[in-house]
Amino acid sequence: MKKLRAGILGATGVVGQQFVRILSNHPFFETVVVTGSARSSGKPYKDATDWIVTNNPPENVTDLDVLDTNTKVILRNDIDLVFSSLPSDVAYSIEDELASAGVPVFSNAGAHRMKESVPILIPEINPSHLNLVSSQQYGEGFIVTNSNCSTSGLVFGLKPLMDFGINDVIVTTYQAVSGAGRNGVGSMDILGNVIPYISNEETKIAQETQIILGCKENGKIVPAPFDVNASCARVPVLNGHLESVVVQLEREFSVDQIIEAFNSFSGEPQALDLPTAPSNPIIVCQEPDRPQPTRDLSLQVGDLGMAVKIGRVRKQKDRLNFFLLVHNAIRGAAGASVLNAEFARVKGVIE
Amino acid sequence: MKKLRAGILGATGVVGQQFVRILSNHPFFETVVVTGSARSSGKPYKDATDWIVTNNPPENVTDLDVLDTNTKVILRNDIDLVFSSLPSDVAYSIEDELASAGVPVFSNAGAHRMKESVPILIPEINPSHLNLVSSQQYGEGFIVTNSNCSTSGLVFGLKPLMDFGINDVIVTTYQAVSGAGRNGVGSMDILGNVIPYISNEETKIAQETQIILGCKENGKIVPAPFDVNASCARVPVLNGHLESVVVQLEREFSVDQIIEAFNSFSGEPQALDLPTAPSNPIIVCQEPDRPQPTRDLSLQVGDLGMAVKIGRVRKQKDRLNFFLLVHNAIRGAAGASVLNAEFARVKGVIE
Amino acid sequence: MKKLRAGILGATGVVGQQFVRILSNHPFFETVVVTGSARSSGKPYKDATDWIVTNNPPENVTDLDVLDTNTKVILRNDIDLVFSSLPSDVAYSIEDELASAGVPVFSNAGAHRMKESVPILIPEINPSHLNLVSSQQYGEGFIVTNSNCSTSGLVFGLKPLMDFGINDVIVTTYQAVSGAGRNGVGSMDILGNVIPYISNEETKIAQETQIILGCKENGKIVPAPFDVNASCARVPVLNGHLESVVVQLEREFSVDQIIEAFNSFSGEPQALDLPTAPSNPIIVCQEPDRPQPTRDLSLQVGDLGMAVKIGRVRKQKDRLNFFLLVHNAIRGAAGASVLNAEFARVKGVIE
Amino acid sequence: MKKLRAGILGATGVVGQQFVRILSNHPFFETVVVTGSARSSGKPYKDATDWIVTNNPPENVTDLDVLDTNTKVILRNDIDLVFSSLPSDVAYSIEDELASAGVPVFSNAGAHRMKESVPILIPEINPSHLNLVSSQQYGEGFIVTNSNCSTSGLVFGLKPLMDFGINDVIVTTYQAVSGAGRNGVGSMDILGNVIPYISNEETKIAQETQIILGCKENGKIVPAPFDVNASCARVPVLNGHLESVVVQLEREFSVDQIIEAFNSFSGEPQALDLPTAPSNPIIVCQEPDRPQPTRDLSLQVGDLGMAVKIGRVRKQKDRLNFFLLVHNAIRGAAGASVLNAEFARVKGVIE
Repeated sequence: MKKLRAGILGATGVVGQQFVRILSNHPFFETVVVTGSARSSGKPYKDATDWIVTNNPPENVTDLDVLDTNTKVILRNDIDLVFSSLPSDVAYSIEDELASAGVPVFSNAGAHRMKESVPILIPEINPSHLNLVSSQQYGEGFIVTNSNCSTSGLVFGLKPLMDFGINDVIVTTYQAVSGAGRNGVGSMDILGNVIPYISNEETKIAQETQIILGCKENGKIVPAPFDVNASCARVPVLNGHLESVVVQLEREFSVDQIIEAFNSFSGEPQALDLPTAPSNPIIVCQEPDRPQPTRDLSLQVGDLGMAVKIGRVRKQKDRLNFFLLVHNAIRGAAGASVLNAEFARVKGVIE
Repeated sequence: MKKLRAGILGATGVVGQQFVRILSNHPFFETVVVTGSARSSGKPYKDATDWIVTNNPPENVTDLDVLDTNTKVILRNDIDLVFSSLPSDVAYSIEDELASAGVPVFSNAGAHRMKESVPILIPEINPSHLNLVSSQQYGEGFIVTNSNCSTSGLVFGLKPLMDFGINDVIVTTYQAVSGAGRNGVGSMDILGNVIPYISNEETKIAQETQIILGCKENGKIVPAPFDVNASCARVPVLNGHLESVVVQLEREFSVDQIIEAFNSFSGEPQALDLPTAPSNPIIVCQEPDRPQPTRDLSLQVGDLGMAVKIGRVRKQKDRLNFFLLVHNAIRGAAGASVLNAEFARVKGVIE
Repeated sequence: MKKLRAGILGATGVVGQQFVRILSNHPFFETVVVTGSARSSGKPYKDATDWIVTNNPPENVTDLDVLDTNTKVILRNDIDLVFSSLPSDVAYSIEDELASAGVPVFSNAGAHRMKESVPILIPEINPSHLNLVSSQQYGEGFIVTNSNCSTSGLVFGLKPLMDFGINDVIVTTYQAVSGAGRNGVGSMDILGNVIPYISNEETKIAQETQIILGCKENGKIVPAPFDVNASCARVPVLNGHLESVVVQLEREFSVDQIIEAFNSFSGEPQALDLPTAPSNPIIVCQEPDRPQPTRDLSLQVGDLGMAVKIGRVRKQKDRLNFFLLVHNAIRGAAGASVLNAEFARVKGVIE
Repeated sequence: MKKLRAGILGATGVVGQQFVRILSNHPFFETVVVTGSARSSGKPYKDATDWIVTNNPPENVTDLDVLDTNTKVILRNDIDLVFSSLPSDVAYSIEDELASAGVPVFSNAGAHRMKESVPILIPEINPSHLNLVSSQQYGEGFIVTNSNCSTSGLVFGLKPLMDFGINDVIVTTYQAVSGAGRNGVGSMDILGNVIPYISNEETKIAQETQIILGCKENGKIVPAPFDVNASCARVPVLNGHLESVVVQLEREFSVDQIIEAFNSFSGEPQALDLPTAPSNPIIVCQEPDRPQPTRDLSLQVGDLGMAVKIGRVRKQKDRLNFFLLVHNAIRGAAGASVLNAEFARVKGVIE
């Protein structure tokens, strides 16, 4: 299969670095363009980037010159698709212009997420939403988004429960500092502390969860009808959002049934054996005190952080309780977008 | 008023040190006995104790010899009451023996909490429960407990809501390491991590909350009828349990009404101006990202950590959400017991 | 004594907040002007400031409007002196202009420190350096600086050793994140980590130490002749720089003699009983594992962080080793400048 | 090559777990015996161990029963050698008894390190010291130790400097909590703190460094003649000891010469291509702010933490300064012992 030529928008940030990392030696895509802010542009990637996600940036990008994040500059290059980890304020117009110019955009930015015709795609969960792109106004180009990082974990905890009928959901988060970007959380604010506030996060979780788990009717998404009540806090953890989830189900259930539903859950990325898909999208921890951010982000060989970990599944009166852990920068950001592009390619939406 | 002679059981631990601190220069009580484990006994308090709660132990105890935590040894001394911060396994028999010997016991241990005749007393919340001691079998002695540290915060968040009718409560905690005692949480387990498990904590919160907010009928406590669904986790914070609370209320409410209910809440300790009582038992933070453990444990002059802080009061659909912060070692432990003893003295239960 | 009217330049930052705090209810000075960046100016101080150093900003400044940090704007006000916690790049010209306009400037900024006629004053250590201001070109105005935060601790560890003859000094630091300012160190960089680099810090420590401990000859400072070899690192600590110091002395010494020299050290601020002066400028810890940042920043009643703590004094072969702890934001910044102004007032240099 | 049958003493602790991990799929050795404390013995390894070093213990040991750490019990098994990560107090007699019974012991414990006939072996540094075992009293058995974890980094920083003549060494450490074992450092002591004391560590560093870098004369080690002045502190870091090193050299040097000496350093394990040997025993970081514990413990493919990282090489007056980073649990403990056994096998000392 010929590799498609990919651009990474906002390639020097934390999520951008994860894009670079995941796309090095990728069987479907090769990185040919990396963009950054005015401060970075013109420099070789290795000099423009304060690389933090592994020891060193992969060799295929170290000497790429960072381009200015500007539509005209980007379009001077021969690219088949772009991945976007731009800040939302910048993302809106750039992504719009690139899609208008015929470029498929796989975006981690929230800018276009709330548009009716833009899918918030998680191929294990809502693969049929991909087709929304045909209703976009862009011609050959289009925009596919992935969800907010907290949402990306929560929907894995909920999807297997839908057979039991979900009445309502209450989620409380313990979110890692990397979710706010490289300098999003200052050390004076978070050392030894918890900050019970993340701007807009609670609303995003509620809305995105309802959309992702919604049905497509007449080419439009009807949001899932249950409430999602979210409370979000930042904790002094580097990577990995932990979430406490309380669900009221319509039907009778036992803890064993729920664990079985989690363990047996699988989706199209697994059936298609997509490169970035984990063997098991959900891993249930047996130990009484897991999952934990420092120990469980990657639990299987080959799991780079794409599997969601669940533990402490328990029934309290009529409610189901559990904790889940999602790698916010992988399953919640760069890995999610790459999986979306893999899925789109295998489905023939990009070629 | 003559000061009563107090013993502190388990005086070298974290909660024991807080007892020592709060009782130094106390108008009602003076510390005349401090006990510890076999390893500590026989040494002067200042040598037996790895003092951590302030810079140095107060002068009134530095040279007291630590006694063995043994009923006979303790009873050789002239004491009017004891405060207990013993581990629960040790607490059961010692507290029982002392009460049988006529000594009033104010205990932070969980050992006797679940007994029908033992009050879990928080004088702002359930002052009438103090009278349960008259149904105890001990004669002149008795046992009064305070609640588990997480519960001690939660009930302040719930009590003012009872006028609105509480249907159910979901609470998720971010608990400080000091709640587990001096060596309860190893640094390898918690640095940069969250541990979503605290042994028995979730059950304690549910049961104790229902009892504390229960009614007394025919001399017995009828637990409050609503569910309390708790999920508990340890975070890398030194002091201060943060809790996210979601409540379903029977009656209509506005956020302003709830804030008003919190702000105007006051109890007998305030009316009686007890030495350890905070002016306002609940302080509502205005800022969007508070309360925070490192910044808000003590918000008013004279508040040593006895006021519970509440923030982010909001309405999501029909539910009420807020965060609260409680100083686990003060309002949740030593300060709670001392306030109970102050209340008992003013009420004439001890003299 | 009439209070002098003080301006605080850069009042919204971490050091600026400490100035505000220390000057509330100060017997010599009252804060009448607070300045900030363009983003802050025009707002009341309480709204412009993300207050972090205590619970709430003191009442005397909450409603002061923050002025733009601009010489003309500042000079429209009736002020007797200014305290500066400006960033060095901004500080140079503003401080110069204010001094030229006749205003005494007490600065925590490094901008003018290396000028021959500008004292780096620590009144316990080099009180005679204050007179350098008479050789400045400013007329009635002048500039007095305090040292870099690490240096401010080190010189207390060295001054009492000068009677033994100092041959050379090797210092290695463990520096708190607050030393870099509010957003100086991102949480992704420092959580669970050590960063063995602080820009220019090692050079500053060497140069400033030699100047502060230098002799005044013919109205000029002759730097102390010994080498100061510094290695600096940032650690995940909020406040308090710890330093390991190794000194080679010319004369024979015993550990007891050194401890005695530390304990008996006192200076003019103590003799003059200046408001911000600690009773003992050096406190020697007895415990084998102290001083520690979280436990020892303030060890005596009334010590707001102005005393330097020393521990683990030991002799290894012919070298003297010890650890010292300095509150970087108090003795190393705002408290140092305030003490300098107090000293200048009592000496009649400002009135 | 037939695999030798290995026992791991103290296999459930932090260093024991690293032994288990490094020996899984090892070409020279297979783990057939694991021992633990009385609390662990009799249970399968996976149940007896609170595994923390990776996600899960390797399959080859999960079902091994943990034996009591008792010489007779151990000798009932067919073993060719043992690795010991016992606490020093227990290690002395057990290691002695096993060696007496003919078993080669590769020990991370300090118990026998200071004996004249027991090598503190680091095969890159002092390979000839291995032969000391021939002077031991044990017959076929013997004891080979590796150094203390801090020392293991320091000697790599010093060995390449010996051509320049070392006059003296001053080292200051920033040590990770894992160096103290699983529960060695409580979270209440180290969160947001630095503890400037580690029992006996400074003496160990000085003595062991002199022995390791000493010459063998007439079958005995003559310690290196230069002073090693050490100051040690614990920091809130999980793994990785950082050390600031200041060296006075006899001969002229340039920074480039020193970097060249570090980069070109190599030893017998590299020449012999031993399984656990890193390609480059020393890696010099180019960046101005490295090495850092969270980013640089493993910098090359295949480096499990056996390479020592050095950065910030600089000349201050006549002294050489640099920082080094060593993985305390790998190069400083389990990896060191395994490399010693590999070296001994290739040299024919065990077979």
